[in-house]
Amino acid sequence: MSERPTPGSELRGQVSDLVAEYAHRIDANALESWLELFTPDCDYRVVSRENVEQGLPGIIMWCDSWAMLRDRVESYRHVNEYNLHWDRHVIGPLRYVAHEAGLWTVEASYQITQTSMESGVSTLFSVGQYRFGIVASEAGVRFKSVEVIADTGQIPTLMATPL
Amino acid sequence: MSERPTPGSELRGQVSDLVAEYAHRIDANALESWLELFTPDCDYRVVSRENVEQGLPGIIMWCDSWAMLRDRVESYRHVNEYNLHWDRHVIGPLRYVAHEAGLWTVEASYQITQTSMESGVSTLFSVGQYRFGIVASEAGVRFKSVEVIADTGQIPTLMATPL
Amino acid sequence: MSERPTPGSELRGQVSDLVAEYAHRIDANALESWLELFTPDCDYRVVSRENVEQGLPGIIMWCDSWAMLRDRVESYRHVNEYNLHWDRHVIGPLRYVAHEAGLWTVEASYQITQTSMESGVSTLFSVGQYRFGIVASEAGVRFKSVEVIADTGQIPTLMATPL
Repeated sequence: MSERPTPGSELRGQVSDLVAEYAHRIDANALESWLELFTPDCDYRVVSRENVEQGLPGIIMWCDSWAMLRDRVESYRHVNEYNLHWDRHVIGPLRYVAHEAGLWTVEASYQITQTSMESGVSTLFSVGQYRFGIVASEAGVRFKSVEVIADTGQIPTLMATPL
Repeated sequence: MSERPTPGSELRGQVSDLVAEYAHRIDANALESWLELFTPDCDYRVVSRENVEQGLPGIIMWCDSWAMLRDRVESYRHVNEYNLHWDRHVIGPLRYVAHEAGLWTVEASYQITQTSMESGVSTLFSVGQYRFGIVASEAGVRFKSVEVIADTGQIPTLMATPL
Repeated sequence: MSERPTPGSELRGQVSDLVAEYAHRIDANALESWLELFTPDCDYRVVSRENVEQGLPGIIMWCDSWAMLRDRVESYRHVNEYNLHWDRHVIGPLRYVAHEAGLWTVEASYQITQTSMESGVSTLFSVGQYRFGIVASEAGVRFKSVEVIADTGQIPTLMATPL
């Protein structure tokens, strides 16, 4: 682990806060404020682990700018008038992979459960890995890119919430 | 995220330790030592996310002092002579929400599994969110309040273990 | 919590990185590089919580040296030509239990899901607790020992992957 970046404790704290905030804002269905965690030139995509390992494209969701991500959230708001489940993320320890040209690459495993508002039953919805590109400035840290690599298959692609 | 408190690395370490300890002592069924993590004037409550979002009271468990929480643990000991499952908490990254008058408000998502001692099968028991009120003194950090907001419904209310 | 060790923020960062790496390398099926996280005189074992609590031996997997752990990984490679699932670990906050003679004892809860490559369905595979023995040197931190205490029963013992 000698070639790995060595973030200071302040950056570690900021990145941990940012990741906690990412998860919280999705779980709280606060997608508009979730958008604020991204840079204007951000890239957000969801891919399947199956395709990644086979070298196939097969992107489940892809927004290559903040405006596109905002449109996605807006569309979601118009279609899903009634949200019938609650999301809940649990994210594991962060893995600092690289630090190049001001960009920190950080990975983490996740599990998302969904709880039915009807039955109250919680089930595993998606498990996988995040690959975050994070930039730090005086204004704080933000996501330049988020790639979600989902182990779990069969994610509904139409108007899905972000993972 | 500009208005958020900025805990130093020492406090972050202490709070992380406290939260890890909270989970561990429940999972180890060491509820008497779990009580030591709370201040004398503590407040511990379990509520359902459904009620919180609808603005309803509907508290599942509520102890508004340390003595009451201790009584709860004692009652539990008398009723449940045979504990037939093991609890296991996994808690996600901490979210520092506020720091006012010496009280840190910190949130985190959780998943609790239960494993049957008979069958060895593990299942999701409860997922949700903690909202911790934490005070720091020279003696260390303790919980002034813990609010458990459970996504999962149908928690058995009679003599349940803490979440 | 007064008798507990008080790790500095740099060590906390290193240990968090090591644990994240442990999980990542198993999940990525990079078991050969996972071996690099251990010291030459390491001890790796998997035990059931049932046996631990009853004071019984009942070890599910035990390698008492690095060479033995490497052999185990090699055997696994020869038998399992086709890996039909993906592992994914999520690990909770770290609990610093002791620091004696240069050895840090650190515990953490885990959940491992497996996702079938055929069906894409993710299920809980094992939940339990790690008890890590970690040594720090100028070259970084490594595992002197890992004990996995599995709540979940019925782990297939023949040629299982590490947990």
